[in-house]
Amino acid sequence: MSHLLDYISANAQRFESELMELLAIPSISTEPENAPDVRRCAEWLSSHLTAIGLQNVKVFPTKGHPIVYADWLDAGADKPTILFYGHYDVQPVDPLNLWTNPPFEPTVRDGKVFARGATDDKGQVFLHVKCLEAWLATHGSLPVNVKLLIEGEEEIGSANLEGFLEEHKQMLACDSVVISDTSMYRKGQPSIVYGLRGLCYMEVHVQGPNRDLHSGSFGGAVQNPLNALAHIIAKLKDENGRIQIPGFYDDVIELTAEDHTQFAALDFDEGDYKRAVDVDDLGGEPDYTPLERLGARPTLDVNGFIGGFTGTGAKTVLPAKASAKISMRLVANQNTDDIAAKFTDYVQKVAPKGVRVTVENHHGANPVLVPRDGFAVQAAVRALERAFGKTPVFTREGGSIPITLLFSTILNAPTVLMGFGLNSENAHSPDEHFDLENFHLGIKASALFYEELG
Amino acid sequence: MSHLLDYISANAQRFESELMELLAIPSISTEPENAPDVRRCAEWLSSHLTAIGLQNVKVFPTKGHPIVYADWLDAGADKPTILFYGHYDVQPVDPLNLWTNPPFEPTVRDGKVFARGATDDKGQVFLHVKCLEAWLATHGSLPVNVKLLIEGEEEIGSANLEGFLEEHKQMLACDSVVISDTSMYRKGQPSIVYGLRGLCYMEVHVQGPNRDLHSGSFGGAVQNPLNALAHIIAKLKDENGRIQIPGFYDDVIELTAEDHTQFAALDFDEGDYKRAVDVDDLGGEPDYTPLERLGARPTLDVNGFIGGFTGTGAKTVLPAKASAKISMRLVANQNTDDIAAKFTDYVQKVAPKGVRVTVENHHGANPVLVPRDGFAVQAAVRALERAFGKTPVFTREGGSIPITLLFSTILNAPTVLMGFGLNSENAHSPDEHFDLENFHLGIKASALFYEELG
Repeated sequence: MSHLLDYISANAQRFESELMELLAIPSISTEPENAPDVRRCAEWLSSHLTAIGLQNVKVFPTKGHPIVYADWLDAGADKPTILFYGHYDVQPVDPLNLWTNPPFEPTVRDGKVFARGATDDKGQVFLHVKCLEAWLATHGSLPVNVKLLIEGEEEIGSANLEGFLEEHKQMLACDSVVISDTSMYRKGQPSIVYGLRGLCYMEVHVQGPNRDLHSGSFGGAVQNPLNALAHIIAKLKDENGRIQIPGFYDDVIELTAEDHTQFAALDFDEGDYKRAVDVDDLGGEPDYTPLERLGARPTLDVNGFIGGFTGTGAKTVLPAKASAKISMRLVANQNTDDIAAKFTDYVQKVAPKGVRVTVENHHGANPVLVPRDGFAVQAAVRALERAFGKTPVFTREGGSIPITLLFSTILNAPTVLMGFGLNSENAHSPDEHFDLENFHLGIKASALFYEELG
Repeated sequence: MSHLLDYISANAQRFESELMELLAIPSISTEPENAPDVRRCAEWLSSHLTAIGLQNVKVFPTKGHPIVYADWLDAGADKPTILFYGHYDVQPVDPLNLWTNPPFEPTVRDGKVFARGATDDKGQVFLHVKCLEAWLATHGSLPVNVKLLIEGEEEIGSANLEGFLEEHKQMLACDSVVISDTSMYRKGQPSIVYGLRGLCYMEVHVQGPNRDLHSGSFGGAVQNPLNALAHIIAKLKDENGRIQIPGFYDDVIELTAEDHTQFAALDFDEGDYKRAVDVDDLGGEPDYTPLERLGARPTLDVNGFIGGFTGTGAKTVLPAKASAKISMRLVANQNTDDIAAKFTDYVQKVAPKGVRVTVENHHGANPVLVPRDGFAVQAAVRALERAFGKTPVFTREGGSIPITLLFSTILNAPTVLMGFGLNSENAHSPDEHFDLENFHLGIKASALFYEELG
């Protein structure tokens, strides 16, 4: 092993230079004019994967941007097969004037590399590539069978991924998936994300009279759709943040004593948290700590509403209609279709008379809860501990990564979410960066992860 | 009297032609480029008032548009003095493409004249002018002392009227004010409006976190200002439309048995009303009929709200802030300042923790309830009955005419609201029009009104 780790140390500078090369390619998936750059990025990766000794390297075209595939399957049938998933596309860069250096001219400051895609997800993809290079260069082999799937449409919804998984089910068959596209709980604290919330995103439309009316001439007799919508929204949650939709909590897996302990161990500072968003008090269910509410409890938030006169000043209108976008974050084992149906029924039931209510289902995703005792998760625990010199913590993220569900349903494989980013690294924002210490520790940790798996 | 009414009949065609001339002047008070037209309209009126024999005709400049004044005060000290108030300015004409004829090219169709300002308020002003002409032409005198005050800023809030009344209190002193700027209950049914609701127009601003947050990463721990605002709005009224602000109803004058009888006599068709606005049910306090709720009960309506993401599709944001414009229609003897203070206290009290709420007071007006037994109101009853051959009904309008309060407080004079418009005449909308039969009946009725007053 020391040979492997020596190689990683000895080549650290070159790894950084290569990462800069990858980061310099403006592979913005949502901008049509960047399509050639996206393609160029896929080609750059495939050349690189070939050069380090991976096999069957191929750039698969899709209806959108290409998918890069590579593998190394000579570890033997008695060794597990691991599918690494990542993405090489990046978010747009607006507003450009808020960047300290141009987003595709990677620049190192204070031990961090600043560039679009640095932490999300090129830096985290590349550290896996570099650990595989180190293995192949020092051992001529990998300790397990490895497949790489690196797509170019994650930032625009992975529209072509599901079809690709279905079509190439055999090629992609594996015992576990590993993704490095999440954040560490804090710098120096290795973390494994074992829970992701699902989503149920609805929109409620309330139609009152057939046109905007004068509030003086009609107010008091005609039901106001804005008051009606506020009434509906207020009925969705009680004052303690408990959601009032019948059956909403039926499938929620309650937190175990171990869960509570692990959340408590995370040492959350409520004062810092409140100061960071500048509020005097937090909201939500009082029986759970804020971290538990964020990661392990479902929520309901109005994401936007509009109705009537919203300009400057005053207009005495009784508006014809109003609407609200309302989304629920779900936790295991809630099902987004079931929740959408319960939401719709309840909204119709509590709607006041005199208005017509329609409910639209925008989209949804089921929650994910990865068993913490799986072989790959346990290998990640040991590898992270060896690389960082610190026991990793288990965390749950409040957001959704719908891809993990595709792997579970199509490939029937669990996912290990072993991330090396930090929440403070401005993913999707100007001055995105990636901590280079975490880049090098990530190479080491993933090298040890593959060893532990073997 | 027959001489007077004969004159009115004989000159009907000329009266219409003159009205068309007045309607052709685009006196839109809110458009700076129409300021010369507004001035021209004032000059046209003053020439006309001089020509028919009124005295002391003057165009008073103000900081905004001019006020036209005229009088005839030779009836003697034993006769009452009546101040007629009206306005010669009009609303803008957008959207122009919805007009059948150009808004300032008055056109007669089906016995109605179509033009901006036809019913609001040039047609109703001009019928008073024509009845005074008829009196002066046939008798050489008026039966009472008359003053006319015709302003050019009613459609933009009458900003300079209060100062003018204060400054010219002596010149404008009177025993009663008469205004024809309201609607008849229905065609063929003469009406006197004896109640106008007041207004208290507030805006509630709710500030949550210091920036828009990701609803996945923060939802469940950070209070959502949109949910909080919906909660506040829902607390303002119960499900029966009863306003929950403590003390809100303290000063409301309950309806008398006579009031209930008069409302019931109006023969309101709830089915027609619901069909006209296309709703299945009405809203509001079940203990009052719809007409009572519209005219004699206070209300609370959200006029507009906005917050978060309101574009197409879905965005998982926990927004930083939300706001709602909320107005209350008041009835005698509620006071707008008192209600604003009670509203503000209550909103702060019911605001959930975790958000900061500020309440803004846009503007207000106190309600008006005119005693139905005053000498001028009773003269109007007799005049309308003689002109229309039908006993007038007393109605209350849901809107506000803040000017009536100025007359009451500054000139200490009650107001008779004797309107000849119809609710269906598209005031403020495309294809505004005025029924010419009502124009002629209005000349007759107001001629008889001045006679009854004498």
